[in-house]
Amino acid sequence: MASEGKVITCKAAVAWEPNKPLVIEDVEVAPPQAGEVRVKILFTALCHTDAYTWSGKDPEGLFPCILGHEAAGIVESVGEGVTEVQPGDHVIPCYQAECRECKFCKSGKTNLCGKVRAATGVGVMMNDRKSRFSVRGTPIYHFMGTSTFSQYTVVHDVSVAKIDPKAPLEKVCLLGCGVPTGLGAVWNTAKVEAGSTVAVFGLGTVGLAVAEGAKTAGASRIIGIDIDSNKFETAKKFGVTEFVNPKDHDKPIQQVLVDLTDGGVDYSFECIGNVSVMRAALECCHKGWGTSVIVGVAASGQEISTRPFQLVTGRVWKGTAFGGFKSRSQVPWLVDKYMKKEIKVDEYITHNLTLGEINKAFDLMHEGGCLRCVLSAHT
Amino acid sequence: MASEGKVITCKAAVAWEPNKPLVIEDVEVAPPQAGEVRVKILFTALCHTDAYTWSGKDPEGLFPCILGHEAAGIVESVGEGVTEVQPGDHVIPCYQAECRECKFCKSGKTNLCGKVRAATGVGVMMNDRKSRFSVRGTPIYHFMGTSTFSQYTVVHDVSVAKIDPKAPLEKVCLLGCGVPTGLGAVWNTAKVEAGSTVAVFGLGTVGLAVAEGAKTAGASRIIGIDIDSNKFETAKKFGVTEFVNPKDHDKPIQQVLVDLTDGGVDYSFECIGNVSVMRAALECCHKGWGTSVIVGVAASGQEISTRPFQLVTGRVWKGTAFGGFKSRSQVPWLVDKYMKKEIKVDEYITHNLTLGEINKAFDLMHEGGCLRCVLSAHT
Ligand SMILES: NC(=O)c1ccc[n+]([C@@H]2O[C@H](COP(=O)([O-])OP(=O)(O)OC[C@H]3O[C@@H](n4cnc5c(N)ncnc54)[C@H](O)[C@@H]3O)[C@@H](O)[C@H]2O)c1
Ligand SMILES: NC(=O)c1ccc[n+]([C@@H]2O[C@H](COP(=O)([O-])OP(=O)(O)OC[C@H]3O[C@@H](n4cnc5c(N)ncnc54)[C@H](O)[C@@H]3O)[C@@H](O)[C@H]2O)c1
Ligand SMILES: [Zn+2]
Ligand SMILES: [Zn+2]
Ligand SMILES: [Zn+2]
Ligand SMILES: [Zn+2]
Repeated sequence: MASEGKVITCKAAVAWEPNKPLVIEDVEVAPPQAGEVRVKILFTALCHTDAYTWSGKDPEGLFPCILGHEAAGIVESVGEGVTEVQPGDHVIPCYQAECRECKFCKSGKTNLCGKVRAATGVGVMMNDRKSRFSVRGTPIYHFMGTSTFSQYTVVHDVSVAKIDPKAPLEKVCLLGCGVPTGLGAVWNTAKVEAGSTVAVFGLGTVGLAVAEGAKTAGASRIIGIDIDSNKFETAKKFGVTEFVNPKDHDKPIQQVLVDLTDGGVDYSFECIGNVSVMRAALECCHKGWGTSVIVGVAASGQEISTRPFQLVTGRVWKGTAFGGFKSRSQVPWLVDKYMKKEIKVDEYITHNLTLGEINKAFDLMHEGGCLRCVLSAHT
Repeated sequence: MASEGKVITCKAAVAWEPNKPLVIEDVEVAPPQAGEVRVKILFTALCHTDAYTWSGKDPEGLFPCILGHEAAGIVESVGEGVTEVQPGDHVIPCYQAECRECKFCKSGKTNLCGKVRAATGVGVMMNDRKSRFSVRGTPIYHFMGTSTFSQYTVVHDVSVAKIDPKAPLEKVCLLGCGVPTGLGAVWNTAKVEAGSTVAVFGLGTVGLAVAEGAKTAGASRIIGIDIDSNKFETAKKFGVTEFVNPKDHDKPIQQVLVDLTDGGVDYSFECIGNVSVMRAALECCHKGWGTSVIVGVAASGQEISTRPFQLVTGRVWKGTAFGGFKSRSQVPWLVDKYMKKEIKVDEYITHNLTLGEINKAFDLMHEGGCLRCVLSAHT
């Protein structure tokens, strides 16, 4: 491509300061260095981690930065030594890397990867520990190794999944975070079996994907719990069979569920990020075998607690990051499942805007009716 | 037998009040009713749960009672409908019942059993919700469905394991609680694989049995942690390969272990009953897969806590009761393993006394050099 090896100047939404509206800037995106890939982002969605860091509550958040981690695009150019993708490939950036050679990747026990974390955790690229973004000479930090709120971004080659070029990018961008997280929490982390009773706390995108995952796993009862009763109608389409609003009960919600299920559920999932709900999700599990998976991300410094007796009597407490999916290997497989209509994606998209309207998209996140808002980056 | 169907008057150690020396009394033991078994206890050991209830700290503790749950004896007589044991059978009473027909037993997922809990939890027998023990007309509560600090006791038929009559009862009585708990925590609950790195917090009987279980599972490193450095010499014989005394370090013990193991252990076991150590045991686990098992029993009302991020990044928090062993099915199998010299038992017995010396045995429990003290009930 004509732009190969050159700085690209394009539009990006820059978070200059916490909690201040993002500003669309002309950002200079340096060419990819060894082991790096420059991607033209076509569509990006918003997720709660973006809003959390933007809010300033994340003590590891660095400013100025370019947020965004749920997106899809096309490879513009690649740096030295990059063999697995080439210009023109359709890709999904992966905030959870997969190098296939570190202790984590080789363990066969986790989808976490240690290769580039030291750099992505502090907003830079591995090669020279610098950012590839700048605005009027000021470097702008990367975010989660993805920074998709930009028309072009640079990612490590271990952080990009090559997908079927026939897949609609304006849909499959969602397979970069929330939907796989929910499905994988059920399929990979909990390994829900047919006939199980499942409780899903929080019916946003992640909780609905949990419900969908549980339905395909053959769960017999899928109980959705949300403080917003409007969620129930939508939730039914994703597999939720019963709905409980904690506000309708005087008893603690764990007790309500234990009573409703003759002793507790087989599996529960916390998809909110609230530490008291995490406790309730554990405690509504059946004695002897109930397993609770923490999916929601709590604010920094907050702690979960329970009586150890809950675990001694057989409950299991787990968590999941990106649903346990190995990103580069399994995101393409999820895209294929979508193409075969085996998993939903379109149904999570409630709003479509442009990158220029990103502040409106952040506002929408706080409205009950919004699941995912997809931004088109080049219109 | 001549005593069949009649009240037996024998010696038992009665806990009349919390924290007061036990009193050896002439206790009347009523005949077994339907589904019950009267057992002549020959040997009983002491375990921490006895001491905990005796101390008065257990809010569910009932007085007066006959404590004791780690023992072996011979069936004296059986009540109506009891088919699986008969007078003369050698048995180990099981505080963890196994009825093979309740929801728990049939789940295939747990060793807990729901059949007699409603009665054993409140110190009585199921049939008439009364005790079979009395002293001068005063009923004495049962304890854990076993009450082995007596020359004769009555248990439910679902709470007694028939064992090889050739097994030495003065040894295999230990297979009623502590040793199986440690072995099973490794084999059943954690399912430790060959080559794993294991941390064992607390090197009493339960912790040493964890070490032994880990050794037979092929663990490559077994790190023992105890605040009493004298424990290390003994611990080596049970498989501990490295020893850490938290008192020798300024850093939190979880950090010491993470540093020692290049990122954390694969499995950890808390065998103390201390909620801060439970947290440390979780947090010293390797990101991505480390699993921590709570074995120790904490005092009532105490809570465990951690940052949810510990679980979201792949650690798993579990617990175990009686090491996950199905009591009636598997205690006989453990006895056979002992007879084939595949598991240690003798090595845990540091003291032998008589039932009459039980208060001395309780004192011994608080001494570092004591693992298990076995009391002979009829000498
Ligand atoms: N572990 C991971 O890898 C991962 C990945 C993506 C997202 N997440 C996290 O998952 C969580 C959910 O994400 P989302 O996009 O679905 O969020 P969302 O805000 O769309 O959904 C949350 C839902 O929870 C409900 N809720 C709030 N408080 C509640 C309470 N006390 N009881 C019951 N319901 C309550 C809300 O009404 C809403 O419907 C967030 O914390 C997000 O950061 C985790
Ligand atoms: N879950 C179950 O089914 C089950 C069954 C039996 C026993 N238990 C429990 O297991 C626990 C251990 O039993 P045991 O008989 O081995 O006890 P024990 O008292 O013989 O051993 C405990 C060990 O922990 C050490 N210790 C104490 N505080 C420590 C600290 N802060 N850090 C490191 N080491 C410390 C002591 O020095 C001792 O060596 C008890 O809580 C008991 O109630 C549980
Ligand atoms: Zn996300
Ligand atoms: Zn890796
Ligand atoms: Zn015990
Ligand atoms: Zn049962």
